Amino acid sequence: MDGWEGLRRTLAAIPRDIPVIADAKRGDIGSTSEAYARALFEELGFDATTLTPYVGLDGLEPFLRYHDRGLLVLCKTSNPGSGDFQDLVVDWRGQRTPLYQVVAQRVVEWNRKGSGQCGLVVGATYPSQLKQIRALAPDLPILIPGVGAQSGSLEEAVRLGADQSGDLAIVNVSRAIIYAGSEADWPAAARAEAQPTVEAMRRSRPARAES
Amino acid sequence: MDGWEGLRRTLAAIPRDIPVIADAKRGDIGSTSEAYARALFEELGFDATTLTPYVGLDGLEPFLRYHDRGLLVLCKTSNPGSGDFQDLVVDWRGQRTPLYQVVAQRVVEWNRKGSGQCGLVVGATYPSQLKQIRALAPDLPILIPGVGAQSGSLEEAVRLGADQSGDLAIVNVSRAIIYAGSEADWPAAARAEAQPTVEAMRRSRPARAES
Repeated sequence: MDGWEGLRRTLAAIPRDIPVIADAKRGDIGSTSEAYARALFEELGFDATTLTPYVGLDGLEPFLRYHDRGLLVLCKTSNPGSGDFQDLVVDWRGQRTPLYQVVAQRVVEWNRKGSGQCGLVVGATYPSQLKQIRALAPDLPILIPGVGAQSGSLEEAVRLGADQSGDLAIVNVSRAIIYAGSEADWPAAARAEAQPTVEAMRRSRPARAES
Repeated sequence: MDGWEGLRRTLAAIPRDIPVIADAKRGDIGSTSEAYARALFEELGFDATTLTPYVGLDGLEPFLRYHDRGLLVLCKTSNPGSGDFQDLVVDWRGQRTPLYQVVAQRVVEWNRKGSGQCGLVVGATYPSQLKQIRALAPDLPILIPGVGAQSGSLEEAVRLGADQSGDLAIVNVSRAIIYAGSEADWPAAARAEAQPTVEAMRRSRPARAES
């Protein structure tokens, strides 16, 4: 209950022109997904949410019905054990392909049928997979966690995750900033952590355009 | 907020000797899984929860640390699109195996290392897969949704899902009972729906023991 109230107050404090992504990793069957979509998009007012693909694409469809909201589907996650299932090589359309690449390609196809609302989640801790996924999904936003507390490279996340124009890489740094300080010094400590991060992101973008 | 309050009140109304499963389908990386486990097991007091395996087994570990709580991992879900990823044939230890069977076998192994807290989720809408999974996981509880609103066969769910002793099949019938009536006639309508369901489950168990 306290967490829910904290979430509401955090959302209320964010200016409306800043898009807010719920890292909710939902993935359930139709009727339950409908209720989760309503809670996240209507009740709380998030602009996008992360989703987990194991149940299949029909479980994600209720989220697609909100045409002005974004869906970011887990593809290759940032954690050490993400290979347990995501890296398994599968038979797919006559090819042998790691599961995470099948997910990427299915989401690309699925996105074409909808309103172009979809993106992928790929951990900065797996730069070579990030590069492969960007090649398979040249036009999709990629949310890239794993920088900061999880020690992925920010420079690689931006360089390998961005599209041809240097856009569509959404690199999030969460724990390193939200846990930057104690109650008293938090605003200054969070700013001190966030500012060089933003500057490093800016520096990494032009470098890519030149290469 | 209303949903959270409704959940609390529902839990408070259930006698403590009845085990309660949260069908929360959580599956996130370590630090977030820790918080989800705390919310479900400590804050709300659930006895077990469902989990989704895509992130990998390390994401599920924080739940295992609660030695007296159950973990039910999605294996073959009841929805029409569950085959999108779950049915893909993967290379695994020199064999070619559908992904859902790899999940079943990994959870069986993982369960042996822990305190025997794990089970699987398999939809009644896929009886032949249920039979295969019971053979791969002879000692694990299997939560079997899909009977009722989703039209899976209750008799098959019990017969194919139960272990050698006719136990360990947890068949849940949710929507058919909770939406059985309107506000006024709900207690009677829910009872009228639930009683024959329980009787049909009892009938299906001895029939299996004789076969």
